Amino acid sequence: MTVLDAARPLDVLADFPAIPEGWAYLDTAATSQKPQAVVDAITRGYAETYATVHRGVYQRSADMTLAYEAARRRVASFIGGAEDEVVFVRGATEAINLVAHCWGGTQLKAGDRILLSALEHHSNIVPWQMVAERVGAAIDVVPLTADHRIDLDAMAAMLTPAHKLVGLAQVSNVLGSVLDAKRAAALAHGVGAKILIDGCQAVPRTPVDVVDLDCDFYVFSAHKLYGPTGLGVLWGRAELLDAMPPYQGGGSMIDRVTFTKTTYAPAPTRFEAGTPHIVGALGLHAAIDYVEGIGLDRIHAHETALVRQAREALSAINSVRLFGPEDSAGIVSFAVEGVHPHDIGTILDEAKVAIRAGHHCAQPLMEMLGVDATARASFGVYNGPADVEALAKGIERVTRIFG
Amino acid sequence: MTVLDAARPLDVLADFPAIPEGWAYLDTAATSQKPQAVVDAITRGYAETYATVHRGVYQRSADMTLAYEAARRRVASFIGGAEDEVVFVRGATEAINLVAHCWGGTQLKAGDRILLSALEHHSNIVPWQMVAERVGAAIDVVPLTADHRIDLDAMAAMLTPAHKLVGLAQVSNVLGSVLDAKRAAALAHGVGAKILIDGCQAVPRTPVDVVDLDCDFYVFSAHKLYGPTGLGVLWGRAELLDAMPPYQGGGSMIDRVTFTKTTYAPAPTRFEAGTPHIVGALGLHAAIDYVEGIGLDRIHAHETALVRQAREALSAINSVRLFGPEDSAGIVSFAVEGVHPHDIGTILDEAKVAIRAGHHCAQPLMEMLGVDATARASFGVYNGPADVEALAKGIERVTRIFG
Repeated sequence: MTVLDAARPLDVLADFPAIPEGWAYLDTAATSQKPQAVVDAITRGYAETYATVHRGVYQRSADMTLAYEAARRRVASFIGGAEDEVVFVRGATEAINLVAHCWGGTQLKAGDRILLSALEHHSNIVPWQMVAERVGAAIDVVPLTADHRIDLDAMAAMLTPAHKLVGLAQVSNVLGSVLDAKRAAALAHGVGAKILIDGCQAVPRTPVDVVDLDCDFYVFSAHKLYGPTGLGVLWGRAELLDAMPPYQGGGSMIDRVTFTKTTYAPAPTRFEAGTPHIVGALGLHAAIDYVEGIGLDRIHAHETALVRQAREALSAINSVRLFGPEDSAGIVSFAVEGVHPHDIGTILDEAKVAIRAGHHCAQPLMEMLGVDATARASFGVYNGPADVEALAKGIERVTRIFG
Repeated sequence: MTVLDAARPLDVLADFPAIPEGWAYLDTAATSQKPQAVVDAITRGYAETYATVHRGVYQRSADMTLAYEAARRRVASFIGGAEDEVVFVRGATEAINLVAHCWGGTQLKAGDRILLSALEHHSNIVPWQMVAERVGAAIDVVPLTADHRIDLDAMAAMLTPAHKLVGLAQVSNVLGSVLDAKRAAALAHGVGAKILIDGCQAVPRTPVDVVDLDCDFYVFSAHKLYGPTGLGVLWGRAELLDAMPPYQGGGSMIDRVTFTKTTYAPAPTRFEAGTPHIVGALGLHAAIDYVEGIGLDRIHAHETALVRQAREALSAINSVRLFGPEDSAGIVSFAVEGVHPHDIGTILDEAKVAIRAGHHCAQPLMEMLGVDATARASFGVYNGPADVEALAKGIERVTRIFG
C-alpha cells in the first residue's frame, strides 16, 4: 500500500454539515466536527422523545431511560468492560478529577507516589497535584524518548512499591505519540500500582479494549469522538468503583437520605448525582455507531497516512521543525523558525486552514520541548490529502511572509 | 381577573415539537420540554457554527467563543449580577457541590452550623452532609409551617452566630411553596451567615434578581428552564468566588502549570476546567430569550392560575389529600387515599397524563409529610386548563378503579 492509497479520503465529508467546501478543519484534537447522524440523534432527543430518566412512571420516561441505559451499554461494548463499570460524567477532565478525588483521596497517603509523564494534558496533571497536596503524596515524571514517546524503559526503572497510581495518555494531544498502554499497565501492576489511561485522543483514532489493555481506569470525552459537548466517560474496574465513596451528592446517587444519615447507591449510579446529560448520551451512542460504521482500523490507517503525508510535506520546508514520532496518530505539532505559532494560525486561517496554536494545555511538555507553543494540525475522518496540501501551501506562504 | 382568564393557555403549545396533541405533560418540575427555538439553537451549534472556545486562532473558534460568552452575559442579565459571577457547571447539583466543597471546605470549621429546610431537594442536603462530616460542622433543619412553607419565623429563632451557611429552595420541587428569599437572606446576614438559594424551580416560574434578593450564591439547571441537559449555572458574589480555591483541575482553569507549582486563573474560568458544554450554553441562551419573550410575570400568573384550578378540581374529589400551600408556584403534590402514587401515575399515563410519582429526591420531606411518596403534577408554559381537566378526570378514574 502506498502512502497515497492509504491517505485516500474516507469519503465521509458529506456527512459533516458544519464543514463548508474548501475548509481544511485541522483542529480535531481540540474538538471534532459532528456527523449528521449525531446531530439528528440530538435533535430527535429534544424534539421528539424528550423526557427525564430513571424516575418517570409514564411511558415516555421509561423509554428515555431505556435509551439512556442503551447508550451506557454501547459505550461498554465500544471500549470493552461491563455496563455497570461505565460512569457518565461531564468530560474526561471530570472523570480524572473523580478518580483523583474518590480513589486517590481515600487510597493515597503521605509518602505515596504518583507517576505521570512529561507529555500529559493539564487535566491529567492538576487533579493529581491537588490530591497529592491534600494527602502528602509526591509526583514523579516519566521522561520522553528522543522521538517524544513516553519512555517506558525509563518508567520501568523509576517504578517502586511506593507508586500507587500511574496516569498516562494513550495518544498525546500535542504530538500524537502512541503509548504501548498494555506494557505500561503491566509495568504499573508489577509494583502494585493502579493505572489510569487518558483515552481522549485514542478512542477517535484507534480500536480500544480496556480488558485487553488490562488498565484500571479509562477516560474519554464525547466531543472529541464526534459526539456532543458536556459529556464524558469514566470506565473503572467494578471492584475499584464499588470501593470508592461518592463524588458529588444529590439526586439519583442516594439509597436513602435522612438528616441523620445518608446511604448511597451502588456504582455507577453513585457517581451520577443529579439529572444526567440525557440527550448527550443519545448523541454519544450515535457517534459510536458512526465511527464503528467506518471502522476504527480504517480510521487509524487513514489518519496515520495523513500524518505521514503531512510530515513529508512539512519537512520539505526548510524552516519547519517537526515534533513527535514518525508514526504519530492523527496529530502533528511543528514550529516555523522565527514565526510565532499564533501568527502561523492566523495566516493559515486566511487560507481556510484551521489549526491550533498554543500550549495545548500541556505546558510542562512545552517546557521540555523548549518552546512556549507549537502549531498543531490534527486530523479526523473528514480530512483528506487535499487538506494536507492546503496546510503545506499555507506554511509555504507563512515562510514567504516572514522570510 | 377571574381564575379562568388567568389560566387561559399562553398559546405557545405549537412551539413544542415533542408534545403530541392530547398529551398532558405535567412533569415540568422534573424537566421541561424544549421549544423549537432551543432545539434550533442546539442544532445550529452542532451543524453550522461548531468549534471549540477560548483557544482557536481561527475565525470559527473566535466566533464560538463570542457566542459562548454572550450566553454567560445573557444569564447575568437574566438573574442580575455580573458576567464574571456566572459559572457554567453541569447542573444545579454540581453547582451546590462546588460551593459546598470550595467555599464550605475552606470556610467551615468544626463547631460551625449549616441551616437547611425540611423541604430541600437531596442536592441541597447531601453535599452539605458530606462537607459537614469532613470539617466537623453540624446541620440544623428549619421546620415548615402548617401549610408547608419554610417557616422563616422559626428560622429567625434558630439562627445563631455559629450558623455560617443557610441553604434554601426558592420554590419547593415537591410542594411549589414559594420562599420569601429576600427575608431569608436578611435573616441569614443578620447573624453573619451566607445564603445559597436553590433556584431550580424558581427561574422557570418567577422573575429572579439575585441583587434584589441580596443572596450570596444562586444555582439553577438549564434543563428545567426549557434548555438543554448537562448544563447548569452557579452565580456567586465576585468576592466569594474570587476567594474560593478551584474545584476540578484541568485545562482552561489554570494560569500556569509546572510539575513544581501550578497557579490558577481568576473566577469564573477557575471553576470551568476542561472543554465546556459549548452548545449547551447556546441552548440556554435561546431558552432564556424564549421565556423572557413570554415574560416571567405572565408565566407566573399563568402557572399560579393552573395550580389554583388543579387544587379546586382535585379537592372536589373526596379521597384526594393535597399538600403544599394554596398559592404554590406551578407545582401540586397530592395523595389519593388507599392508592400508591405509582399506581396513580400508571393509570394517568394510560389517559395520556404524565405526572411524577415518588419521593422527588426529597425523602426528609416525605418523612415529615408522613408518606413514602406523593403524586405530583407540575406545569409549564405549554399547559392549559384542558391539561388540568385531563388530570382531574384521570384521578376520578383512579378513585373508581380503586374505589
